[in-house]
Amino acid sequence: MTTVDLLVQGEIATLTLNNPEKLNAINLSMWQQLADRMGKITADSSIRCVVIRGAGNDAFAAGGDLEEFVTARATLEQALHYHGQVAVALNAIADCPHPTLALISGACIGGGLEIAGVCDFRIAGESSRFGAPINRLGFSMYPGEMEGLLRLVGPAVVKEILLEGRILHAREAYEKGLLTRVVADEQVADEAYATARRICSGAPLVAGWHKQWIRRLLDGRPLTDAEKAASFAFLDTEDYKEGLAAFLEKRKPVFKAR
Amino acid sequence: MTTVDLLVQGEIATLTLNNPEKLNAINLSMWQQLADRMGKITADSSIRCVVIRGAGNDAFAAGGDLEEFVTARATLEQALHYHGQVAVALNAIADCPHPTLALISGACIGGGLEIAGVCDFRIAGESSRFGAPINRLGFSMYPGEMEGLLRLVGPAVVKEILLEGRILHAREAYEKGLLTRVVADEQVADEAYATARRICSGAPLVAGWHKQWIRRLLDGRPLTDAEKAASFAFLDTEDYKEGLAAFLEKRKPVFKAR
Amino acid sequence: MTTVDLLVQGEIATLTLNNPEKLNAINLSMWQQLADRMGKITADSSIRCVVIRGAGNDAFAAGGDLEEFVTARATLEQALHYHGQVAVALNAIADCPHPTLALISGACIGGGLEIAGVCDFRIAGESSRFGAPINRLGFSMYPGEMEGLLRLVGPAVVKEILLEGRILHAREAYEKGLLTRVVADEQVADEAYATARRICSGAPLVAGWHKQWIRRLLDGRPLTDAEKAASFAFLDTEDYKEGLAAFLEKRKPVFKAR
Repeated sequence: MTTVDLLVQGEIATLTLNNPEKLNAINLSMWQQLADRMGKITADSSIRCVVIRGAGNDAFAAGGDLEEFVTARATLEQALHYHGQVAVALNAIADCPHPTLALISGACIGGGLEIAGVCDFRIAGESSRFGAPINRLGFSMYPGEMEGLLRLVGPAVVKEILLEGRILHAREAYEKGLLTRVVADEQVADEAYATARRICSGAPLVAGWHKQWIRRLLDGRPLTDAEKAASFAFLDTEDYKEGLAAFLEKRKPVFKAR
Repeated sequence: MTTVDLLVQGEIATLTLNNPEKLNAINLSMWQQLADRMGKITADSSIRCVVIRGAGNDAFAAGGDLEEFVTARATLEQALHYHGQVAVALNAIADCPHPTLALISGACIGGGLEIAGVCDFRIAGESSRFGAPINRLGFSMYPGEMEGLLRLVGPAVVKEILLEGRILHAREAYEKGLLTRVVADEQVADEAYATARRICSGAPLVAGWHKQWIRRLLDGRPLTDAEKAASFAFLDTEDYKEGLAAFLEKRKPVFKAR
Repeated sequence: MTTVDLLVQGEIATLTLNNPEKLNAINLSMWQQLADRMGKITADSSIRCVVIRGAGNDAFAAGGDLEEFVTARATLEQALHYHGQVAVALNAIADCPHPTLALISGACIGGGLEIAGVCDFRIAGESSRFGAPINRLGFSMYPGEMEGLLRLVGPAVVKEILLEGRILHAREAYEKGLLTRVVADEQVADEAYATARRICSGAPLVAGWHKQWIRRLLDGRPLTDAEKAASFAFLDTEDYKEGLAAFLEKRKPVFKAR
C-alpha cells in the first residue's frame, strides 16, 4: 500500500509520504491523496502548523514512481492529467493558510524536492541530499513544477540541478538557499517539531496574515488603500490586546485565534 | 530624550538612533526625525555616504516602542498615520541618492531590521542578532515594511523571521543574505567607516548613477533609447577624464563630482 | 594578437579569451569575435556544452581594455556602438541553447564578470577574485550589462561591487551566490570539464528544454495551454524511451538528441 497518512496531534498536523519499498517515490494516487489531505488540513482552523515528511529515515521522497510513468504518463493526454494532479497537490501546499514545514531525512529528489520547495520551512538532516537528475532519464521537469524552486533559489541553482543533474548534499543545499536549517540526522525530527511548536506559540491569525501579505507582495502590484487598511485587522483582535499586555506585564501570552 | 542625531564629518554623515533606555527602540517622533534628517542629507550634495547606527553598543534598534503602541497606534486611523510616517522614513533611506550603510552592534529587531534592510550596506558585529518576533505580540508587520526585506533575502527567510519568530545570529544572517559583512564586535565601527571611506574614494556622480540604474532595472521594464543614452552621461564629466588618466598614469585620482 | 579562440573537442566547445599581455582584458574586436564564435556554437547542434575561459591561469578577463576607451569609447556615438557590441556578445551567451560554463582562474573583473554572470555555471579556483571597481575610474556600468549580475546575486551584492568597488575573493563570492562551485586552483580545469561531461551525459534535447523553460518562467507571465502541452515534447522522443528503459534495466542510457 502506498499512502499519504494524516495524523493530527494537538495543533500540529503531520503528513507522511509512505511508499517505503521505493524510498517513498510518489505515484499518482499519492499526489491525489496529498491534495486531499491538504484540503482537510486547510479546512481545519484548529491546525497551526503542517509537517510533511517521508516514512522512515531513508527518504523524504525519492521522486516520482518511474515504473508508473511507462503506463500512466505515456501520452500527452495522460501527461496533462498526471501533472495537473501534481499541480493541485503542490498548489494546495503553497496556498495552505497554515505554515508548512518539510522534515527531510535522506533522499529528497524530483517530486520530493518539488514538495519541499513549496513548503514554508525546510529542516534537513546532515546526510540528506537534493536533486532532480531527470536529464539522465530523458525528460524535462514540468515548468509549473519549477516555479517554487525558482522562487526559492533562483535560476543558477535550478540550472545546476537540472542541467548538470547534480545531487546537492545538505550543507551545499543550505549554502545555496534551498534549506532553512541543517541539523544532525538524529535531531532532525526534534528540531522540526520544536520549530513547529515555536510557530504554534505565535498568534495564529498573525501567521495567516504574514503568509497572505508575503504572497501578495510577490506579485509586484502596489497595495491598494483597502489592502493597507486591511493589514491592520489585528487591531480589533483579542490576541493583539493579549500580546501587548503580556509583553508589558512580562508574562507569556495566551492566544485564542480571535 | 529620544532623538535621531545627525553628525556630518567631511563627506560622511552619521545618523544615530538614540533611545538608550529602551535599546534604541524607535518611537513615532524618532521615525519623523529620521525622515527629516534623511531629507537634509539628501539635499546636501557634499555628502558621499550615510552611516546609520544605534547609540551605544547594545543595539542598533530593538524595534518599535511598544508602550507607545497602546496609545498612539490603537485605532485604524492612528495606525495608518503611524505607519505612513514609518514609510516616509524608510522611503527616504531607500531613495537617498547617496550610498547608505547600517552599522550594527547588538539587537537589530523589528523596525531596526526594517531600517537596516533598506540600506545599501549592512556591516554587523559577530554578536549582533536579527529578527521581528511580533507573532508573539499578536500583530503583523505592515506589508509595505516587508518589501525591503523581501527584496533582500526572499520569502523563505522572511517567513522564518515572521512565522517562527526566529532570532538569527550574525553568522546565520550573513549566510542567508541579510548582511554584507560580519566582523568582530570591536571592529564593526572601524570596518563600517573604512567601507564608507572606500565608497567616498570613488567618483561621486558614478555612485549616484549606479544606485539609480540598479533601482531602475529592478522595475523590470526595458530601458528606453533615451535612458541608454543617459547612462553615458559620465563621458562628459571631468571625473571620467581624471579617472582614466589617473589609471593610465598609475596615480590616485582626485574626483570633484563634476 | 588579441583573439577569442574556438576549439571544439567532441561535444564540448571551448572559447578562450586571449589577450595575455593585459590579463585577457577584452577589447572591441574581442567582443565582436566572442559574438561571432557564439553564433557558430549556437548553430552547431552537435555541441552539448560551452566552456568559456581565459588564456593562462592569471585571469579569466581583467575587464575592458581601458587604453582603447580613450579612443574608441570617447563620444556618445562611440559608446552606444561599443556597448551595443558588448550586448550582442552577452546576449549570444545568455541566449545560447547549449549549457554554458565559465572556467575561472585569477582575475574576473568588469567585462569578465559580466561574461561569467550570463553563463549557466561558474566554476572558480580558490584564489580567483571578482569585482568591477570602475567607481575609481569615473564611469558607471552600462545598465544592460548589470542585468545578468542583478538576476544572479540581487541588488545588495551588485551595490557592494559597484558602490564600494569591492573585490570579492572566491569564497565570499560563492557565499554571496556569485559562483556555482569553488575548487583548488590546480583542479579548476578538471572540475569544469568534468561538469561539462556530466552535462553532456544527459539527454541533449532535455538540456535545451530546461534552459528554455527556466528563461520563460522568469518573465512572469503564466504559461499558456499551448506551452503546457509543448512542455511534454519529450514524450515523443527516442531519448525518453531510452532513458526510462535504461533506468528500469539498470544500465547507462545512450542518447541521440532525437
